[in-house]
Amino acid sequence: MTAPVRYELIRRCKDTNARRGRVTTPHGVIETPVFMPVGTQATVKTMAPWELEELGAKIILSNTYHLHLRPGEDIVERAGGLHGFMNWSGAVLTDSGGFQVFSLSGLRKITDEGVAFRSHIDGSPRFFSPESVMAIENALGADIIMQIDECPPYPASREYLRTSLDRTLNWAKRCKEAHRRPEEQALFGIVQGGEHLDMRREAAEALIDLDLPGYAIGGLSVGEPKPLMYEVLAHTTPLLPADKPRYLMGVGAPDDLFEGVERGIDMFDCVLPTRIARNGTVFTKNGKVVLKHARYKDDFSPIDESCSCRVCRTFTKAYIRHLLKAEEILGLRLTSYHNVHFLLKLMENIRISIEQDRFLEFKREFYQSYGYTGQREDVD
Amino acid sequence: MTAPVRYELIRRCKDTNARRGRVTTPHGVIETPVFMPVGTQATVKTMAPWELEELGAKIILSNTYHLHLRPGEDIVERAGGLHGFMNWSGAVLTDSGGFQVFSLSGLRKITDEGVAFRSHIDGSPRFFSPESVMAIENALGADIIMQIDECPPYPASREYLRTSLDRTLNWAKRCKEAHRRPEEQALFGIVQGGEHLDMRREAAEALIDLDLPGYAIGGLSVGEPKPLMYEVLAHTTPLLPADKPRYLMGVGAPDDLFEGVERGIDMFDCVLPTRIARNGTVFTKNGKVVLKHARYKDDFSPIDESCSCRVCRTFTKAYIRHLLKAEEILGLRLTSYHNVHFLLKLMENIRISIEQDRFLEFKREFYQSYGYTGQREDVD
Ligand SMILES: [Zn+2]
Ligand SMILES: [Zn+2]
Repeated sequence: MTAPVRYELIRRCKDTNARRGRVTTPHGVIETPVFMPVGTQATVKTMAPWELEELGAKIILSNTYHLHLRPGEDIVERAGGLHGFMNWSGAVLTDSGGFQVFSLSGLRKITDEGVAFRSHIDGSPRFFSPESVMAIENALGADIIMQIDECPPYPASREYLRTSLDRTLNWAKRCKEAHRRPEEQALFGIVQGGEHLDMRREAAEALIDLDLPGYAIGGLSVGEPKPLMYEVLAHTTPLLPADKPRYLMGVGAPDDLFEGVERGIDMFDCVLPTRIARNGTVFTKNGKVVLKHARYKDDFSPIDESCSCRVCRTFTKAYIRHLLKAEEILGLRLTSYHNVHFLLKLMENIRISIEQDRFLEFKREFYQSYGYTGQREDVD
Repeated sequence: MTAPVRYELIRRCKDTNARRGRVTTPHGVIETPVFMPVGTQATVKTMAPWELEELGAKIILSNTYHLHLRPGEDIVERAGGLHGFMNWSGAVLTDSGGFQVFSLSGLRKITDEGVAFRSHIDGSPRFFSPESVMAIENALGADIIMQIDECPPYPASREYLRTSLDRTLNWAKRCKEAHRRPEEQALFGIVQGGEHLDMRREAAEALIDLDLPGYAIGGLSVGEPKPLMYEVLAHTTPLLPADKPRYLMGVGAPDDLFEGVERGIDMFDCVLPTRIARNGTVFTKNGKVVLKHARYKDDFSPIDESCSCRVCRTFTKAYIRHLLKAEEILGLRLTSYHNVHFLLKLMENIRISIEQDRFLEFKREFYQSYGYTGQREDVD
């Protein structure tokens, strides 16, 4: 059986675990490390697929929980899967929906069998099991599909994490067995285990035994201190097979991208760039800028003088601020477009820096210009 | 003095008063009859300027009242006027803000001097006079600027219309005197007079005496029966100079476009296409379609099989319906884009039909296919 997703190593960083690679999927080749914009409901918020193409996005993420509830995987399947439904010719990754379901506190009940929950849309009762989630993800047709896992909160007791991890590992096995399209869709396992390095190791080993085509690290960036996240990452990533892609889930702040890459991560996703954009906050090489601030009302310069994106080549801060204040949709489009461009360009520059044996130097330059304080980037 | 806007007649309809012409402005040539998309707050809602270009829009309308309140004409002027502020290289027309101010019932007081009102944004007291409106429109820098007028409600008593018309004509004169950039911006007068043909004639004659570079017909499509609107139009349009553009304000339903063209109108504007789009309603050659309807949930055909726009070439009704139901901005973008395309394409086909001496035939075909019932198109 040919794996639908293959990883090829291009170059190792001379100083760190950072690595420059390439992931081949049924819908194109992805240069790694890569940031994947999130299209929760089969659309990266405010953006058209041709704009993502324009920005050089090669893979986007979409959400099993949301698409199952609306429009339903049957509709998506009949449209030719997510690629056909959205008219997106690049690669797609679907998460398992577990993260969303476990966030529905009060509305859900977890057993070893699966999770019973109620739709946040109409309150209808639903049940996610490894088998039902695989059926949904098979219907959605993404190139990479995630196992259902439990993403425990931080902090959680060791006992809780123990039970949770056993369940997640059992679910990984059941997902593999239930997966009906293994030659077209790559099932990734998710390493959980909280901050406990022994449990992380156990999880990695158990998942490696399943010989999956890729592995993710979950349960990070959920409120723990940054140094703890970096420690867990530094410990866990090297446990994963070097010949398969490694994906750090839900992470997308610029500093976390650097720190993740440095520890050997290949793939990232986060709602951060589009979410802060809709609040009028944009990334610039000198840090984040809140465009609604009065100081920009007559600032006729672009968001970022050094940015090559269409928005920065075309519009001024004064105009975009006006659109945001007037609650015009174009304002949200422009900030979203720029922010997604910013992270994709950042990853491109990170890839180049690894190729040129200057990753740490580039990181230092970026941090200095961006003005990092060591504080976690808020997903506001 | 060279008029900044010139009208050239290309062909008369052999059967009706319809005319095919060309309006030259400081920002490009406009083939007429033309529909002008409305960008109230310096953006055609949901759309980027390059999308309007892509659709072949040559002129858009923007709004003096809204831009005066936010961001203020000083900001727009310093950005290089509306063209620079929005990055729109085509022509722009600004209305006078009178229509919005007169709609603020309870918040405004009209005298011959002008209108005192309060901002709907912050309640601050403001005053619009012919002189202040001209100063604002001169700062906004549109190619065509409208006089301030009173647009009376329907129905209104003859006495009310009498007083109102005197004021509007007086204001036209004061606008002309106060206009500081007559070589760059064409001031259009507005013919009012309600349903009274004698008052319409009087208004037309008084405005013609001012020798303005263009004339609009206002106070129609404000609730009167359609036959009355057509009667007033049929009477009023021929009173206007044949060598200048004639603009019917606030009209944009497909049937009203045909009926207006038939009676000699060259220019139209309306929020209709973008407003109904945001409710999920789209134009098709077979009439309007409400995309949120359940019957479209698995309809994998485009909005309009015969439409050549990017949306119809790319997306299905099922996908767009999903976006609308999920309240995704892309849904509003796609319906808006298609609807603006629909009206621009309709006008292009109307222009071709006049050139080919088959305007009435084209109108008949369109009405039959669209399924006109004679009811007014609701601006919902
Ligand atoms: Zn930019
Ligand atoms: Zn279309």
